[in-house]
Amino acid sequence: MAPSARAPLDSANPGAVTCGPLPGSRKVYLPGVRHPFLRVPVREIGLTNGETLAVYDTSGPYTDPAAAIDLKAGLAPARRSWGAAKRGVTQMDAARGGTITPEMEFVAIREGVSPELVRDEVARGRAVIPANANHPELEPMIIGRKFLVKINANIGNSSVVSGIEDEVDKMVWAIRWGADAVMDLSTGPNIHETREWILRNSPVPIGTVPIYQALEKVGGRAEDLSWPAYRETLIEQCEQGVDFFTLHAGVRLAYVPLTANRVAGIVSRGGSMLAKWCLAHHEENFLYTHFRDICEILKGYDATFSLGDGLRPGSIHDANDAAQFAELDTLGELTVIARSFGVQTMIEGPGHVPLHLIKENIDRESRICDEAPFYTLGPVVTDTAPGWDHLASAIGAALMGWYGGAILCYVTPKEHLGLPDREDVQEGVMAYRIAAHAADLAKGHPAALRRDLAISQARFGFRWEDQFRLGFDPERARGFHDETLPAESAKLAHFCSMCGPHFCAMKITEEVRAYAASLGVEPAEALVRGMQEKAAEFAAGGGKATLGERR
Amino acid sequence: MAPSARAPLDSANPGAVTCGPLPGSRKVYLPGVRHPFLRVPVREIGLTNGETLAVYDTSGPYTDPAAAIDLKAGLAPARRSWGAAKRGVTQMDAARGGTITPEMEFVAIREGVSPELVRDEVARGRAVIPANANHPELEPMIIGRKFLVKINANIGNSSVVSGIEDEVDKMVWAIRWGADAVMDLSTGPNIHETREWILRNSPVPIGTVPIYQALEKVGGRAEDLSWPAYRETLIEQCEQGVDFFTLHAGVRLAYVPLTANRVAGIVSRGGSMLAKWCLAHHEENFLYTHFRDICEILKGYDATFSLGDGLRPGSIHDANDAAQFAELDTLGELTVIARSFGVQTMIEGPGHVPLHLIKENIDRESRICDEAPFYTLGPVVTDTAPGWDHLASAIGAALMGWYGGAILCYVTPKEHLGLPDREDVQEGVMAYRIAAHAADLAKGHPAALRRDLAISQARFGFRWEDQFRLGFDPERARGFHDETLPAESAKLAHFCSMCGPHFCAMKITEEVRAYAASLGVEPAEALVRGMQEKAAEFAAGGGKATLGERR
Repeated sequence: MAPSARAPLDSANPGAVTCGPLPGSRKVYLPGVRHPFLRVPVREIGLTNGETLAVYDTSGPYTDPAAAIDLKAGLAPARRSWGAAKRGVTQMDAARGGTITPEMEFVAIREGVSPELVRDEVARGRAVIPANANHPELEPMIIGRKFLVKINANIGNSSVVSGIEDEVDKMVWAIRWGADAVMDLSTGPNIHETREWILRNSPVPIGTVPIYQALEKVGGRAEDLSWPAYRETLIEQCEQGVDFFTLHAGVRLAYVPLTANRVAGIVSRGGSMLAKWCLAHHEENFLYTHFRDICEILKGYDATFSLGDGLRPGSIHDANDAAQFAELDTLGELTVIARSFGVQTMIEGPGHVPLHLIKENIDRESRICDEAPFYTLGPVVTDTAPGWDHLASAIGAALMGWYGGAILCYVTPKEHLGLPDREDVQEGVMAYRIAAHAADLAKGHPAALRRDLAISQARFGFRWEDQFRLGFDPERARGFHDETLPAESAKLAHFCSMCGPHFCAMKITEEVRAYAASLGVEPAEALVRGMQEKAAEFAAGGGKATLGERR
Repeated sequence: MAPSARAPLDSANPGAVTCGPLPGSRKVYLPGVRHPFLRVPVREIGLTNGETLAVYDTSGPYTDPAAAIDLKAGLAPARRSWGAAKRGVTQMDAARGGTITPEMEFVAIREGVSPELVRDEVARGRAVIPANANHPELEPMIIGRKFLVKINANIGNSSVVSGIEDEVDKMVWAIRWGADAVMDLSTGPNIHETREWILRNSPVPIGTVPIYQALEKVGGRAEDLSWPAYRETLIEQCEQGVDFFTLHAGVRLAYVPLTANRVAGIVSRGGSMLAKWCLAHHEENFLYTHFRDICEILKGYDATFSLGDGLRPGSIHDANDAAQFAELDTLGELTVIARSFGVQTMIEGPGHVPLHLIKENIDRESRICDEAPFYTLGPVVTDTAPGWDHLASAIGAALMGWYGGAILCYVTPKEHLGLPDREDVQEGVMAYRIAAHAADLAKGHPAALRRDLAISQARFGFRWEDQFRLGFDPERARGFHDETLPAESAKLAHFCSMCGPHFCAMKITEEVRAYAASLGVEPAEALVRGMQEKAAEFAAGGGKATLGERR
């Protein structure tokens, strides 16, 4: 289990990636208590009123001006000294034994919870920490319903387009905007080398679908897939440090006919390959028959299962049907086996589901898979939005997260149409950052509530600069505002171009508060403070004020 | 009630608007039965397999090549001959009297329901048909929970930016992409003339907030507002043909102090003006005290109430609070009064609401306002997405529609930052078209289900051209696809750039179906037909096939 021999990274041009902090932000590292050597990254947003807000930071060393970035060398393998490789047991085994590993304390500090909660949830199997012992560049994160809802960004090239540099750039770009995990779904040439570049430069867990590479090894003929070819590929990828694997072991021969009457048949790529293999050989899926062998392999690296939903619906008309739920039953059976090996496990979900059928997916998964973290692809809530599927799926993702989904796999505007480019990656990550945050708010997560409170106070206090910084996309927010009011003075103005400098909500609210006070009602402290500060700046500027909303 | 004297439209340059059908679509007009003179517009999408799908069409004559468009002359006043002005009773009065008006039959044909259902819902007050007798250019539509969920687009200039031509262009652009209604929220100069241009060229209902113009008339000082000034403005706008009015009659003096401890105070522009007036005079809101006079005026034109939520929350921390619900109680009281005058009424809702508090809004509104149609502004489900509020609010809007909301007021990416431009209008309309459609699907609306079935069959049958045409944004979908595979031959190809020409879901599914058939499972007819057609084209093209989804 020594880290794999590095592939020749220098055989490709590393290209350039976006570095540097987000506007008004600085990177802060928090030390561990049990493990003082830990350096847990936090993004501290500085506000114009002197306050700061610390927010969860997925962006890695790329946003730390003090970190030297060299894509050929890869990120510093800080985690190598934490002992994961030497320890030789999985996070789940350690947790069951009562041990709080450095990874557990790291994620506890990140989430603002006790290490004991992390340990107990991992031991229980209700949360996973995808952290291959051979991925020392990793900044560990946790996936589970009791923690912040996470999002995954899919990247990867195909034989039609995209090269290694583009994929490394997309990975760095995706985590800059908030991707908690990244899956490399490359199917074209150089699969191994592309993955090596991504892993060595990734601070977030990397997932793959090994059957894509296995298929390349057998010349692209699904019927020629075999357990030996798959096993070799799986070990190769574990050695490289892949943190979690999508594996369609639930696509059983007997379930394949259940898809015959579907509108959209089988839409999972991996699922369709295995269905084809099952039919060609009229044999049971070899991932199912060899599942215990697979558990043995993953256990050796503490790689995490992402049990794939190869029979997920590809149309809302196929949602929650017999094929989908038959496979889910099998995933429940496999979850028990995986846990008996101490292998961390999450369950993948759809796909295409109308609003009213979303809740049944998470409720059923929780019951059948004993609350293993649910990892859904959207779902899109309509099939009719090609070009806008990031939005159509963010609606379903927000609901899924609120109902208990632990990690949401993004969908980009290019879904169903083509391979996402850099801009699509940002659109997808932003849509899912919003969906996940909305779910955290609905679940009452204190960190999420703090951020919304801070930005609302900034907005209502006409602290434009702070509103930009506290949003998920400071550059876009500032750009939109400046399209009509570019002057710096407008950043203190008590109006925007929506209404113009005519009505004064600020003044009105001050009058409201004075009146309320005269009736003995106490105004909210923070707000009054905020208003007084602005009132001073405002008097100096001599502007007028109005409202941010209309109607 | 003769149509108002036309303002001098030629005093402004009408500019240009986008005309012509959407790709693959043609305009069809359906005749009435009771009223044979009716010409109900439908967009018929032609498919490459010879089938067609008829979809709801909000775009008006602008997408009919046979219609002559002259912005200075305005649209043909076809509705003038329907007798609404002569009839002199509201749709609600007529419905209560058992009459099925031309407007009722028109919307029944549009919705594919019986005229009796329309009549009964309008009589019951559970649906409204906003149709001012002085808006003869209107193609009537209905708003109510038993019908398709509708969306509204806000346009309008301010003293800071935008002119008359831009607003007319935005209106035509908004209905092209699916806006069912448009509100002109202009606050700058030329309010009357801008509105005249929009009304005379609008086939959809136009709404306004009269207090904006009333405020201009009193020099922009809220405390100088008065019933006479407001009354004059309201009559002026009724004469022009405004179909529905947002009117903040529920902002009562006693409720104003309830906003004192809010994070974001009062964020409704109209609401803040009236709160200010109430405090300045220490008197009850004159819209509340004169509500019966207002009913008399609206009744004369069959204008519809949109009772505004002037105390709606402007931050998720203020959602569902005492101020908001106190105002809602008063809106319930006013609904009873409005209906006693036979004036159609809908109720406005928030705003900023976290996912878990959305349902209480519609449930409470239904109970308190006797199921009057609920018209919500989003809501955004987080305050932290400036620059992306179209998406953050589409999530809330989809839920609201699913729960029973009748019309969803869009939010654009510029919300909280600036005045939306043409591109923002399209982003907002598209986000809400998707949200409303998702709600219709969850409610089981047959027309919505048909469209999703058609596009999924096209997608799974690799009929790329049909997938583009059946989507909400054919041009964007085609553009995204063609970025990587521009060749026309690729429109028949059984793969896209996501996966490349390597895996063949089509072939696999054919094998699955053959195998299923051998077990006596019957494949779905339509699909088999679709696959055979493509198989032929495909053999001719000699391409390979693969899947539209990954993972």
